[in-house]
Amino acid sequence: MNIPQSSFSRIVIVGGGFGGIALAKKLGRKEVQVVLIDKHNYHTFQPLLYQVSTGGLEPDSIAYPLRKVVKDFPNFFFRLAEVERVATEEKKIITSIGTLEYDYLVMATGSVTNFFGNDQIEKNSMGMKTIPQSLNLRSLILENFEEALLTDDLHERDALMNFVIVGGGPTGVELAGALAEIKKGILPKDYPDLDTRRVQINIIQSGDRILEGMSEKASRKAEDFLEGLGVQVWKGVHVTGYDGKLVKTATDLTFESATLVWAAGVKAVCTKGLDAKELLTYGSRLMVNKFNQVVGTTDIFAIGDVAQMETQDYPKGHPMMAQPAIQQGKCLGDNLIRLLEQKPMKPFVYKDKGSMATVGRNKAVVDLPNFKFQGVFAWFVWMFVHLFFLIGFRNRAVVFVNWVYNYIRFDREARLIIRPFKKKHT
Amino acid sequence: MNIPQSSFSRIVIVGGGFGGIALAKKLGRKEVQVVLIDKHNYHTFQPLLYQVSTGGLEPDSIAYPLRKVVKDFPNFFFRLAEVERVATEEKKIITSIGTLEYDYLVMATGSVTNFFGNDQIEKNSMGMKTIPQSLNLRSLILENFEEALLTDDLHERDALMNFVIVGGGPTGVELAGALAEIKKGILPKDYPDLDTRRVQINIIQSGDRILEGMSEKASRKAEDFLEGLGVQVWKGVHVTGYDGKLVKTATDLTFESATLVWAAGVKAVCTKGLDAKELLTYGSRLMVNKFNQVVGTTDIFAIGDVAQMETQDYPKGHPMMAQPAIQQGKCLGDNLIRLLEQKPMKPFVYKDKGSMATVGRNKAVVDLPNFKFQGVFAWFVWMFVHLFFLIGFRNRAVVFVNWVYNYIRFDREARLIIRPFKKKHT
Repeated sequence: MNIPQSSFSRIVIVGGGFGGIALAKKLGRKEVQVVLIDKHNYHTFQPLLYQVSTGGLEPDSIAYPLRKVVKDFPNFFFRLAEVERVATEEKKIITSIGTLEYDYLVMATGSVTNFFGNDQIEKNSMGMKTIPQSLNLRSLILENFEEALLTDDLHERDALMNFVIVGGGPTGVELAGALAEIKKGILPKDYPDLDTRRVQINIIQSGDRILEGMSEKASRKAEDFLEGLGVQVWKGVHVTGYDGKLVKTATDLTFESATLVWAAGVKAVCTKGLDAKELLTYGSRLMVNKFNQVVGTTDIFAIGDVAQMETQDYPKGHPMMAQPAIQQGKCLGDNLIRLLEQKPMKPFVYKDKGSMATVGRNKAVVDLPNFKFQGVFAWFVWMFVHLFFLIGFRNRAVVFVNWVYNYIRFDREARLIIRPFKKKHT
Repeated sequence: MNIPQSSFSRIVIVGGGFGGIALAKKLGRKEVQVVLIDKHNYHTFQPLLYQVSTGGLEPDSIAYPLRKVVKDFPNFFFRLAEVERVATEEKKIITSIGTLEYDYLVMATGSVTNFFGNDQIEKNSMGMKTIPQSLNLRSLILENFEEALLTDDLHERDALMNFVIVGGGPTGVELAGALAEIKKGILPKDYPDLDTRRVQINIIQSGDRILEGMSEKASRKAEDFLEGLGVQVWKGVHVTGYDGKLVKTATDLTFESATLVWAAGVKAVCTKGLDAKELLTYGSRLMVNKFNQVVGTTDIFAIGDVAQMETQDYPKGHPMMAQPAIQQGKCLGDNLIRLLEQKPMKPFVYKDKGSMATVGRNKAVVDLPNFKFQGVFAWFVWMFVHLFFLIGFRNRAVVFVNWVYNYIRFDREARLIIRPFKKKHT
């Protein structure tokens, strides 16, 4: 892999997400050699992917070149590669571009959509965990309307304009809200020759409330917001199959729809060599101790979505979100330095900074540890926090310009079919 | 195609480029039914494609939804389709989504890259006429550097870092300049473990000067600018072949390069049914009279790159650029109304507003009809003019933010491999 030998210990970080970057920044100027590996050459700001799918933001403004993150760090190497296997005995990783030995290995590979083993749904539905996936969804939504214009079959036209989102977490809720705003503000102007009032947006949650990870008040308010926007919220409904046309559920309820977005769950990315049963827990996460050390190893660590740290406060592990990943990345950075200096490591303690979701303009819900609020102010807080956590000044400026424009003009101009989705798949 | 019948005459415009849009805007509120057809759902601002290829701008900021252009016009219909054939006798077009009758047909289909019949070059080189092409080139350039890092073969490494641009028009010059700036400002930081001084940028022109369409002074100055940036300018060199590795020329001169960008010429898009020999001229352009009427027809018009109007000042037709297309679109809009009102049409007179090209920061050349200048002021004029002609306030704002940022920071942050080019092709 052409990484020079050095007298420093080599730390290999797999994954440039929130956790991997937080860790890289901590190690940037220390006396270690760091190799950051990712299969993309950019970091993705996943919380805003739904805005890419719905034409509110351009993909480039929520991506950030990984080489730029590490460019000022000496002894830092970035490699664009996929890790195929970890050979724990030989302390090396086997990747698409060769093998590499490590002194310490940090898995920060994040998560992928979890279809819970349902191949039919996996094949026919859309995920929204990466930028290419979000762009595919954007193309599909727009292509569906272009097709709806052309058909004389009312049944087919309704199916093309019926969107089913499975999963009532922040991703599902934010996407449903954005689609509802498009229905209201953009479709009647873009498609004057189509009865866009017939557009349906359905969000399906298996549990008894949406935003299950938040407070009951937030759930209730988000549901009110969604229904106010014309979204149909289905609770306690289990989707069991989708053949590209008909969404089936555990009961008689079905939906005729050309678009199923699956946002019902994620699972950790599982890497060969670290997939022994005793290491993995629910959702393929790697069991780690309080120092993020993978159980049974001394030189392998895991942070973020891929790590399962069971504590008294979080007996099932921390939520699979940005905050735990960032905090674990920072903590592990300090701990690796301590380890190299042969000092004892400090256990990770998660500081819950709260959670939030947005439904639409002036409509968001925010749960802070001591204060829960909803509505206009929550929406401004949501925007401020997302701008703050975006990486890069240019990205912040471009996102800000887009948001101001979209807010004032009730518009989303990135409704472009740059690479058609359907053509590629037929 | 589901276009309702109306009592108005139906004008069908094929192509939503500069010409098509200028025409559409003229007809927007007149007593005609207009159908605008394009194979993309967006207008592309082609003069800035090279900035997309080189990571300076995001693709979405130089694209504009066509439905948005026409959304306020009554009796206006947009259809996403490719025209397969024109049946002139029956006055209808056959498209990928059905047939459509017209009263008047306007071809505004623009141009594509002209490989002058060389299939080998067409297969192995990169064009830069559409957004997907520009994104492919962006991915390829970045992938080449990632690969150059990995190889121990010095020969191969040099070929991966050797860029050959064929064609010394504005596209080639602007791309070469942008690559040179990347070499200087970004590569040493992004690839500290690669000897990026070995990056070569070659621009090859078959004629005896670059920017042949501009004044000799502009050519000379642009060449100085390029050479100052380290670009090798080859004149009087004819590229004859490229197998993906070796660029061959009419002499012994060869280049080992993994990237050949072909910007050596364009040809008009030729549509079946309008491809009779007597209609076509050099470069597949349709011969039109001074009213942009295709010769031998009364109900078919052509504007922009696809139209060849031979006048005293332009015996070989107008240059294939934005300005003639825009002016012809506007003029034809007025003429079609006059035609419907049974008034005589007015002949098209091209008003040359000058031309310009940029090489890099503070380096541009501008030829106005009465005033030619180069350097910093020219560069500001170039930027102002391009911002002015961009469609949409949001696009202007986002491009402006990017340019200010890039200027201050010597940076280009959109260096993202969002869809790998090589993976798809191997």
